[in-house]
Amino acid sequence: MKIAIIGGDGTGPEVAAEGVKVLKSVAKIEGFADQLELTELDWGGDRYLKTGEALPADGLDQLRKFDGILLGAVGHPDVAPGILERKLLLDVRFGLDQYINLRPVKLFPGVETPLKDKGPDDIDFVVVRENTEDLYCGAGGFMHKGTPNEVATQTAIYTRKGCERCIRYAFEYTQKRDNPKGKKLTLVAKTNVLTTGHDLWWRTFNEVASDYPDVEIDYNHVDACCMWIVKNPEFYDVIVTTNMFGDIITDLSGIIQGGMGVAAGGNINPEPGGVSMFEPMGGSAPKYTGTGKINPIATINAVSMLLDQLGQAQAAERVMSALMHVTGTKMKSQSAGKMGYSTSEVGDLVLDALA
Amino acid sequence: MKIAIIGGDGTGPEVAAEGVKVLKSVAKIEGFADQLELTELDWGGDRYLKTGEALPADGLDQLRKFDGILLGAVGHPDVAPGILERKLLLDVRFGLDQYINLRPVKLFPGVETPLKDKGPDDIDFVVVRENTEDLYCGAGGFMHKGTPNEVATQTAIYTRKGCERCIRYAFEYTQKRDNPKGKKLTLVAKTNVLTTGHDLWWRTFNEVASDYPDVEIDYNHVDACCMWIVKNPEFYDVIVTTNMFGDIITDLSGIIQGGMGVAAGGNINPEPGGVSMFEPMGGSAPKYTGTGKINPIATINAVSMLLDQLGQAQAAERVMSALMHVTGTKMKSQSAGKMGYSTSEVGDLVLDALA
Ligand SMILES: CC(C)[C@H](C(=O)O)[C@@H](O)C(=O)O
Ligand SMILES: CC(C)[C@H](C(=O)O)[C@@H](O)C(=O)O
Repeated sequence: MKIAIIGGDGTGPEVAAEGVKVLKSVAKIEGFADQLELTELDWGGDRYLKTGEALPADGLDQLRKFDGILLGAVGHPDVAPGILERKLLLDVRFGLDQYINLRPVKLFPGVETPLKDKGPDDIDFVVVRENTEDLYCGAGGFMHKGTPNEVATQTAIYTRKGCERCIRYAFEYTQKRDNPKGKKLTLVAKTNVLTTGHDLWWRTFNEVASDYPDVEIDYNHVDACCMWIVKNPEFYDVIVTTNMFGDIITDLSGIIQGGMGVAAGGNINPEPGGVSMFEPMGGSAPKYTGTGKINPIATINAVSMLLDQLGQAQAAERVMSALMHVTGTKMKSQSAGKMGYSTSEVGDLVLDALA
Repeated sequence: MKIAIIGGDGTGPEVAAEGVKVLKSVAKIEGFADQLELTELDWGGDRYLKTGEALPADGLDQLRKFDGILLGAVGHPDVAPGILERKLLLDVRFGLDQYINLRPVKLFPGVETPLKDKGPDDIDFVVVRENTEDLYCGAGGFMHKGTPNEVATQTAIYTRKGCERCIRYAFEYTQKRDNPKGKKLTLVAKTNVLTTGHDLWWRTFNEVASDYPDVEIDYNHVDACCMWIVKNPEFYDVIVTTNMFGDIITDLSGIIQGGMGVAAGGNINPEPGGVSMFEPMGGSAPKYTGTGKINPIATINAVSMLLDQLGQAQAAERVMSALMHVTGTKMKSQSAGKMGYSTSEVGDLVLDALA
């Protein structure tokens, strides 16, 4: 079980360190410590400033040799915004064909949501975001650039293969998910306006649905979906959506489950031999670097997802239970600096709870 | 003051009727009843089912002769979704070059927000959405359609002229808006991924900003913005954004201000002689047709915006005060069927309060 740890920028390495602590501890408890092989990679902003590259030329090939990746955070105050996100995060997603972005949205015990009258039973759904196509392909250009007649384009490209594999994954996931309220998959798109691109999604969704007769299907326009996530999050079981809308919906969902301190996601290549990368939702928060104020719960959540992906369901469960014990009975808040504990103390609490 | 009333589908005509009542009443009180000329147009789903057209062939030319338009709602249960929205709503927006979609987001007194610990002082901002370009242009196509190799594209097109006129409008609006917390305009886009289309927006925003040194500027990625709208709506004064992201952000904002029952927007052509159209945010809710359960407050809110656009600031203010009196002291809820009054009774309450 070879795992790459990319701490990244700002507070990324600090939260990654807590993830590593948890990983090592649960491996010992569950008896696979001897199989666990962790490799820390110092990729990110500092490296970019020194060498002009966020990761080495053979970086993707290096990553292909691992069984999984844990990422801290990307974003350096001395690097123009957008560069590291593209060179590190997006290049890995695309290069390793991590075509699923999986975002479980769950209000953990003790965690505060900004929504009135909503509890853990109401906020418990999963977003499956397509992670390799759409407006993220980088197709676009300029004409008459810099003049009053300038025209700029940005093209979303979708393929049948690309949306079908994502939609199938979402159906399988919905089928397996143990939801007492029933199995429902909601497609979120904008078919009334994106009449070509989202027509392909719509047709594919409905065709694939016939292979999963036990899954109830639903459709929401993206604008309506954002309303329901705030007003009636309990409507949702699993959502499947395009890359761009998924970016928006996963962040919105992240805030209702308690924010950056707790939310995590996976960039998954579900194929045999595929390498997946898990990350806390928060950014690198450079101003907090070294202060011990950042919440490592999101990273520990990412570790649980990583273990699950590696087939260690029992270890994943154990980490999740420990995490929920700590949010539910120990921490004062999930906000940076208000936890009642330092970053590493929260990690220690999780270790105690693991045992 | 020639105003077209398009009741539209489902409950649209019912709420439009309350808007008309308010319009006539305030015109009498403010002394411009003799100038007011209302024309009802029976455009929408029923017409489409009979004739194949939602509006007559010379529909846009007819509309050009009015000073303003009040729209009820679009969406008929017997017409496939998307058709009427495009044929009526979008065709009017584009045909009359209503390049601003203006959405004031204000929590009226007595109205419940789904957010914890947020009151009328916290939820008080305005979204300026570009309304004629972006993914809404309809550019896109298919290759190998219906095969496993299908590729579909959808292209967002932006012009310097198109984004500059919207951004300028937003700066002017921010300058004029009386916000005790200061004048701040936030651009919402996704510059780290949409590196051509949103680069044009970014450059234009920053260039135009130098003409408005008294306006503080800020930038948010769209995903982060959706988080802040839920977590810290008080951050915002005025937001300016693209058509597609604006669609999402305005609906999200609508739900935090109390939802479909209260939120309204304007499709504005601010040029001399431009004809603007105002609408409640809610849909046509066909199942409620004729039940008197739908909330007309959103339409009355739209009437206030229409009056303001027509230069009747005092009448607009009067309608707004009456509306807030009714939400603040009379209505039990803003949800359909739970108001404590019927649709027309709520209209009557506003008439009483106008006097
Ligand atoms: C950093 C950025 C490129 C990225 C995205 O847009 O996908 C982020 O917002 C995310 O959701 O992981
Ligand atoms: C009905 C639809 C075409 C429209 C849009 O996407 O603009 C609506 O959602 C809106 O925001 O007015």
